[in-house]
Amino acid sequence: MDLIQEFEQWVGEDTYIKQVSIDCVIFGFHDNNLKVLLPKLKLDEDLWALPGGYIGKDESVLNATRRILESRTGLVDIYLEQFGVFGELNRNSKDLVKTITNKIGVTTEEHFWVFDRFISLGFYALVEYSKVTPRLNNILDESCDWYSIKELPALAIDHDQIIQKGLETLRIMLDHKLAGFNLLGETFTMKELQKMYETILDKPLRRDNFQRKMLDMDILERLEKQYTGAANKAPYLYKLKTIK
Amino acid sequence: MDLIQEFEQWVGEDTYIKQVSIDCVIFGFHDNNLKVLLPKLKLDEDLWALPGGYIGKDESVLNATRRILESRTGLVDIYLEQFGVFGELNRNSKDLVKTITNKIGVTTEEHFWVFDRFISLGFYALVEYSKVTPRLNNILDESCDWYSIKELPALAIDHDQIIQKGLETLRIMLDHKLAGFNLLGETFTMKELQKMYETILDKPLRRDNFQRKMLDMDILERLEKQYTGAANKAPYLYKLKTIK
Repeated sequence: MDLIQEFEQWVGEDTYIKQVSIDCVIFGFHDNNLKVLLPKLKLDEDLWALPGGYIGKDESVLNATRRILESRTGLVDIYLEQFGVFGELNRNSKDLVKTITNKIGVTTEEHFWVFDRFISLGFYALVEYSKVTPRLNNILDESCDWYSIKELPALAIDHDQIIQKGLETLRIMLDHKLAGFNLLGETFTMKELQKMYETILDKPLRRDNFQRKMLDMDILERLEKQYTGAANKAPYLYKLKTIK
Repeated sequence: MDLIQEFEQWVGEDTYIKQVSIDCVIFGFHDNNLKVLLPKLKLDEDLWALPGGYIGKDESVLNATRRILESRTGLVDIYLEQFGVFGELNRNSKDLVKTITNKIGVTTEEHFWVFDRFISLGFYALVEYSKVTPRLNNILDESCDWYSIKELPALAIDHDQIIQKGLETLRIMLDHKLAGFNLLGETFTMKELQKMYETILDKPLRRDNFQRKMLDMDILERLEKQYTGAANKAPYLYKLKTIK
């Protein structure tokens, strides 16, 4: 299937609900950095955008979000949370989409539905970094990579605001829903857990307080010591007691 | 303007974005109860629904929500927060709207746009109970009153779920955004403040801990004592230092 056919299938007139889109902030934790998965758009300028998509007429919002997330990460059953609605009048990606579609040789009409105003539903997803295989949208993307939230590239439309609001909500939810554990592998040391919290909250935490708080919640199962070669200094490994 | 004209104006084909609605959970605090403002629908059965509406084609989502809230409470500048998206395939109010519109003598076509599937954006609003004058939607409502969240009446579609999700989010946000102060008048005693927190969280709080926590945040300004007739036992009045 060539790009033009792919495009025509993607935007088939009667497939999607109009004027509503989904934007996903996909968070991963790697090298003590909180990162976001961002595709770079096929444009002459350097511009990135959140992975997003539309909601099928016969698809729930949740399933649409899961489909979009799977298409970008290869993962199913991702932890996700809706965190905001972006509905300002001036949010419009007409020029962007038009430039890209012209590039791949598609002729679009002036009143094409993807040029309309869109209300975007913001979802963040928490994934295990090492399990993700970033995937491109063939039509729109030049590449797709991880970027530290401390060094975000230039973002289209209001996507920087969407990321900031997602991050703000993640910080609030960190304690309330234990959401952060979805960023770690199945087992982890107390130090790794603390580092993840500190990175997301962007502040140091006191080691003794943090450890007491985590153990008091009675959610961690202590496993064997991590093999480091120096048995007496080896830290314990933990896993979550409850099902994620 | 009679009801039929009012209806025709309300659902004029080109006024609103299709398939997206807004539902508002309007919280008030009264008599040590957390209450929700709920219209009763014009039906033979006893059924209530959240106050809601649509988004104008030339209106931001935020302004649409403010317009809906003002139309129900008479208040402007209400504190509000988006808390969820309700996008299941099976949420449909076709039968409800049809029954009501038939009652007022409107003939609707089978494929009328308000009969479509709607994705609903959930917002909660925090209002000062005593300032609200509940207002009806002439077309849909028989009455409009406050109901304690402990004794909610029968609700249409998924509106009970929407209220529960709104309440859950309010509980999480209570500390993070000091949102609860919007439920109180300009001045309040420490006891009134604690009662409001206890009612929302649905659990008792220790008086000394609560008072210390509130004072440590350095957000309260202590005013004169409340006049009770017995000067020595009169509690201090407080107000928020910061602008709401």
